[in-house]
Amino acid sequence: MAITFGDNQYGKAEVRLVRITRDGDRHQIKDLNVSTSLRGDFADAHLAGDNAKVVATDTQKNTVYAFAQQYGVGEIEEFGLRLGRHFVDDFEWVTGAQVRIEEYGWDRIAVDGADHGHAFSRAGGGTRTTVVTIDGPSAWVVSGLTDLVVLKSTGSEFRGFPRVRYTSLAETNDRILATAVTARWRYGSVDVDWAKSYTDVRRIMLESFAVKHSLALQQTLYYMGEQVLLARPEVAEIRMSMPNKHHFLVDLSPFGLPNENEVYYAADRPYGLIEGTVTRDDAPDAGRAWQAVPGF
Amino acid sequence: MAITFGDNQYGKAEVRLVRITRDGDRHQIKDLNVSTSLRGDFADAHLAGDNAKVVATDTQKNTVYAFAQQYGVGEIEEFGLRLGRHFVDDFEWVTGAQVRIEEYGWDRIAVDGADHGHAFSRAGGGTRTTVVTIDGPSAWVVSGLTDLVVLKSTGSEFRGFPRVRYTSLAETNDRILATAVTARWRYGSVDVDWAKSYTDVRRIMLESFAVKHSLALQQTLYYMGEQVLLARPEVAEIRMSMPNKHHFLVDLSPFGLPNENEVYYAADRPYGLIEGTVTRDDAPDAGRAWQAVPGF
Amino acid sequence: MAITFGDNQYGKAEVRLVRITRDGDRHQIKDLNVSTSLRGDFADAHLAGDNAKVVATDTQKNTVYAFAQQYGVGEIEEFGLRLGRHFVDDFEWVTGAQVRIEEYGWDRIAVDGADHGHAFSRAGGGTRTTVVTIDGPSAWVVSGLTDLVVLKSTGSEFRGFPRVRYTSLAETNDRILATAVTARWRYGSVDVDWAKSYTDVRRIMLESFAVKHSLALQQTLYYMGEQVLLARPEVAEIRMSMPNKHHFLVDLSPFGLPNENEVYYAADRPYGLIEGTVTRDDAPDAGRAWQAVPGF
Amino acid sequence: MAITFGDNQYGKAEVRLVRITRDGDRHQIKDLNVSTSLRGDFADAHLAGDNAKVVATDTQKNTVYAFAQQYGVGEIEEFGLRLGRHFVDDFEWVTGAQVRIEEYGWDRIAVDGADHGHAFSRAGGGTRTTVVTIDGPSAWVVSGLTDLVVLKSTGSEFRGFPRVRYTSLAETNDRILATAVTARWRYGSVDVDWAKSYTDVRRIMLESFAVKHSLALQQTLYYMGEQVLLARPEVAEIRMSMPNKHHFLVDLSPFGLPNENEVYYAADRPYGLIEGTVTRDDAPDAGRAWQAVPGF
Repeated sequence: MAITFGDNQYGKAEVRLVRITRDGDRHQIKDLNVSTSLRGDFADAHLAGDNAKVVATDTQKNTVYAFAQQYGVGEIEEFGLRLGRHFVDDFEWVTGAQVRIEEYGWDRIAVDGADHGHAFSRAGGGTRTTVVTIDGPSAWVVSGLTDLVVLKSTGSEFRGFPRVRYTSLAETNDRILATAVTARWRYGSVDVDWAKSYTDVRRIMLESFAVKHSLALQQTLYYMGEQVLLARPEVAEIRMSMPNKHHFLVDLSPFGLPNENEVYYAADRPYGLIEGTVTRDDAPDAGRAWQAVPGF
Repeated sequence: MAITFGDNQYGKAEVRLVRITRDGDRHQIKDLNVSTSLRGDFADAHLAGDNAKVVATDTQKNTVYAFAQQYGVGEIEEFGLRLGRHFVDDFEWVTGAQVRIEEYGWDRIAVDGADHGHAFSRAGGGTRTTVVTIDGPSAWVVSGLTDLVVLKSTGSEFRGFPRVRYTSLAETNDRILATAVTARWRYGSVDVDWAKSYTDVRRIMLESFAVKHSLALQQTLYYMGEQVLLARPEVAEIRMSMPNKHHFLVDLSPFGLPNENEVYYAADRPYGLIEGTVTRDDAPDAGRAWQAVPGF
Repeated sequence: MAITFGDNQYGKAEVRLVRITRDGDRHQIKDLNVSTSLRGDFADAHLAGDNAKVVATDTQKNTVYAFAQQYGVGEIEEFGLRLGRHFVDDFEWVTGAQVRIEEYGWDRIAVDGADHGHAFSRAGGGTRTTVVTIDGPSAWVVSGLTDLVVLKSTGSEFRGFPRVRYTSLAETNDRILATAVTARWRYGSVDVDWAKSYTDVRRIMLESFAVKHSLALQQTLYYMGEQVLLARPEVAEIRMSMPNKHHFLVDLSPFGLPNENEVYYAADRPYGLIEGTVTRDDAPDAGRAWQAVPGF
Repeated sequence: MAITFGDNQYGKAEVRLVRITRDGDRHQIKDLNVSTSLRGDFADAHLAGDNAKVVATDTQKNTVYAFAQQYGVGEIEEFGLRLGRHFVDDFEWVTGAQVRIEEYGWDRIAVDGADHGHAFSRAGGGTRTTVVTIDGPSAWVVSGLTDLVVLKSTGSEFRGFPRVRYTSLAETNDRILATAVTARWRYGSVDVDWAKSYTDVRRIMLESFAVKHSLALQQTLYYMGEQVLLARPEVAEIRMSMPNKHHFLVDLSPFGLPNENEVYYAADRPYGLIEGTVTRDDAPDAGRAWQAVPGF
């Protein structure tokens, strides 16, 4: 028996970058949280403390800021691809890189009904994400969103589930359905109109959630993914993770009061957690696209 | 020397209430976090474990849900006043009550350009709050908002501060100014158009932040408060707490790169914290309005 | 009617300071989170953006680090007093200061049964705090602890509370009692053995919680405070805030199973919140000791 | 092209269970956060909203509580194996299950120097975890710990790294090394003395961190894993994720002060993130042990 060194990666996590682009008084803002990690020949550092090949995480951080100045940010997928390619191409012992980015949205503040040029308020509606993975000459992009919190106050049922020894839940044909969507979709190529694709996928997910009469959160999840794939050919596959944010009808009968689906208790824990994938049967191979991406 | 029992209060904190009001397929949603606390003759519970006067916190929670069914929620200030009055009026040994409410906003999901009747996504732009305090026959309302995150990418300076032994900060005539506003404003009466007042105060704060050329966050804070008081006579006083969410210009000169206010590092800690009050010289007495409200 | 500028303060919040003191291979560590705030003549900054008197929050931060080097930290009360006095004494327009400190504990890692000299693991058992307030020549110290999470699996009852319209809670003579103690105690002077006092107060609170048969969390709170005051004459007053972290017995009867106080659900929200003060009838006046300290 | 349903799982997350075992006045407490998820033939729910095979997540929650009553908890690995086997064995269409458990430690409160029988305070020092995965007849156990926060105030260097265009970091031969260890180790079988193994692995990790002179966090990580594998033959493989919690020496030279590794700023973000695996060359195949476990 010998002890050996296995899978590994390292990098700088959560580099907070705000990039302003000025066009006179009208500014654009990009507000990102960037994490980079490298793979390659790093055994010497682990086994002998020899750092000759360790591109310092501080250097990685500097690279993020320097690239933002030199090239701008553009869409986060572009920025991730540029950073990842740099690490793999410019350091011969670096064979792979992953760049994860979260983008926080900002809305322009309205003043007398007109958008202000350089004053913003933080937008709601979830956070845009991307994970760019480079392995030698190959590159994959998995984009997504998190914390898109949605709720339907009707149009949701849950019936017909097995009644076994430990079942006590009543059936319902009218409940609140609420979730905080985390979705990640894999692109079939890196030649995509990233902004247009993101905007459309997000819109389709919201609309699909809204219009689908739900017999189970599982059904809603699948429908949302299916609608995305039907409309967006550049998306090869989509994975969704949806906590069932339970809203329990409060029993007011001890107080002689009715409760016709009016008064709910929004529970924190526990919560159902539904996770599923919708894909195409002719999707290109995923390669390393999902490597190190939390999933199921 | 004798040991004595001093100030006290007790109640149920963070009752999560979602109240749906149905008008056919078009629903209204109120999503609240309600905390109640009582004051009065509770010495026996503390000194002897005698609970004869302890309105159980579970009972307080039930009351929140029951009132939501019986009376609806309406504006959170109304709901808080109704709950607070109930506790003080219906239990003779309860002399005071405080009801704190946070309201989470929801936007209707747009489907084919039209607002959906009962599908919602969680809104951004901060959380609406109120603190209603009842003391015997008197009542005070302090409403507010939290987590209104705003940023100006120019139009902010910080110069002319004392240069003393421990000063190293450079002066700047162009910086990013960002903060997460917490504001609480005291109403001069309880006869107010709550919804209109909230909407206007919030709008004025956003607009004031946007348009004011800032020589110090202190100046911006005062200006925002002043504009609120000028426009809204029902507001007697406003207190604001604003962390200075520092965005530091990244020094790219080691890499031979300029940085003309383009690339910033968004820092977490430490942060400046500016807190101030703007009031009227003829404001009615605050009474117990600020009792137990975190402040300065 | 005129609009005027009211109460205010400003400073640097959450300066994270780690101070190492070396005695050969044996090091001492102090790990603090320090917030400073100043009061005084700051109207010009607010009304006119004139910063001539604004001791920059960056300067305040530098002072924290410089003082740690020059004087060491010692006990957090000493460090707070030194910082606060400096701001009030060295700037004539600064009339008051408040220094809030949290101290994170570290245990030495044991190697072969012996404490290591300079390797540590983060301690549990709550965070030590202090709030030092200076006003002109006067100084007050309110020390405390937060997040001291304790639980009794028996020896707690809750019975005899009023049964009114909205009461549904059953009485119990055996329940789990759990809370996360936040306590703040005011010292009668600034001439105290701070370390000894803190250690004793903390120990007394733990022991009192453990041994007191509880008829109500209110009774436990009062008893804990009373025992502190009986044993520690330097403590003039103690305020405690205790969430009742509910542990509900799970109803297993639908599955034909008993539950003799064995299986509990630990709930997050809502929670009871019990807050009370125990004081001496001959305590010195509190002055500004509690100014801007969150409380009730 | 057809759209198809891919990988999926569902279950109940974060079931908070406290199990008391009474032996007269001396109680044992187990405080867990349990998440279960199932895999199998769930396509009908997703594609058609047919829930005939959907073991409700509420049923899964009830099972956790019922099993805690019927069988006790024991070690979390045993509890996870029992739950997972139940789901796979008792429902023919369930082909796999995963049970994730976090265990929160409690220390007995000392009263007059003796451990109290049923009064506890929450322990520090990290959280014990396990992930049990069942696939048909096979079972794997990956146990671990999270949030084990450790710090060395000397005995750590970082030198010899590449100096490239974007490198600005200075070399150091004496720095603070601090991290919050997340470790997960895969067992080679399910026939293990779980409690003994956990205690030893944790102790070895602490001791290894303390004694290893560190030339890189990578080296420390590998050494810690290596020492675990050398001492514990039941461990087939260990994966560690260690944020480099940077402590930066504060530059006090602008104030004419030295800083001989005494005064540090503890930074939040960004942080280095070092992740690596140490394994045996004769380790049994991992099978599905790491399926859906966040990693790299």
